[in-house]
Amino acid sequence: MAKSPKDLSDLFYDTLKDIYFAEKQIMRALPKMAKNAQSPDLTAAFEKHRDETEVQIERLEQVFELLGKPARGKTCDAIMGIIDEAKEIMEDYAGTDALDPGMIGVAQAVEHYEISRYGTLSAWAAQLGMKDAVKLLETTLAEEKKTDVALSTLATAKVNAKAA
Amino acid sequence: MAKSPKDLSDLFYDTLKDIYFAEKQIMRALPKMAKNAQSPDLTAAFEKHRDETEVQIERLEQVFELLGKPARGKTCDAIMGIIDEAKEIMEDYAGTDALDPGMIGVAQAVEHYEISRYGTLSAWAAQLGMKDAVKLLETTLAEEKKTDVALSTLATAKVNAKAA
Repeated sequence: MAKSPKDLSDLFYDTLKDIYFAEKQIMRALPKMAKNAQSPDLTAAFEKHRDETEVQIERLEQVFELLGKPARGKTCDAIMGIIDEAKEIMEDYAGTDALDPGMIGVAQAVEHYEISRYGTLSAWAAQLGMKDAVKLLETTLAEEKKTDVALSTLATAKVNAKAA
Repeated sequence: MAKSPKDLSDLFYDTLKDIYFAEKQIMRALPKMAKNAQSPDLTAAFEKHRDETEVQIERLEQVFELLGKPARGKTCDAIMGIIDEAKEIMEDYAGTDALDPGMIGVAQAVEHYEISRYGTLSAWAAQLGMKDAVKLLETTLAEEKKTDVALSTLATAKVNAKAA
């Protein structure tokens, strides 16, 4: 029997696997970024986001459950690329005042990747009539936006001036 | 003589090269995405953004000039990863109604990468006292945000429902 053509619920599941993989990579990268940060405020921001990420992963597992599918990751080239850029910054700017601004910049690229994916997943969940999934995805989306704003504030209020 | 440690202007130049490379890759990817889109509205949106990207590249060249440095690209792993995801969607969802929502999702990941980079570059340019560069970067930033909103509207008003 021929398989039916892929639809929005397949796309939703594929993209859920993409962000699930991404969040796990982010959780592994954040402690190293926290350790490398020169400003105690930035270390604290990365540590806080690590803890948030742990809860966000649990929320994704709840969405997998609502979908009735196993929670699985799928290599996300985008996040691997962004994390490679973070490693590059930590090497190229080690010991300089530009390290913190550089790490904030990359962390905001991570946040924006997540904002785009959670926004998309939430819209698809709404289209699929998955109200509880929308709630979970929107909760995380709001957290990512808040983290992005907090990083901007830290950069412009403190970190950038030290590097200029 | 020892080289002076890297500072914010080095970071600004490095990141300018990163987004310059990224914009050029995006300009190459958009015609293929426009050709693959099923909805004429989405084809038009990708074609419009291709034209905008051309002008955004010129603006970056003006920023390089203001900085007094040659306009050069530097491999941006993040954008390569996102474009790989676009290719994957175009293969995996070819001929299905989920193709357009999938391509919009990836295009929004591209927009958000750009939004994060232009936001960061603009903040750094302000810190470096480069007022004319801020103006150029903010003009592009506003365009990217507008494109992101237009893609969201297209998805939720038309494209997603067809795929559900």
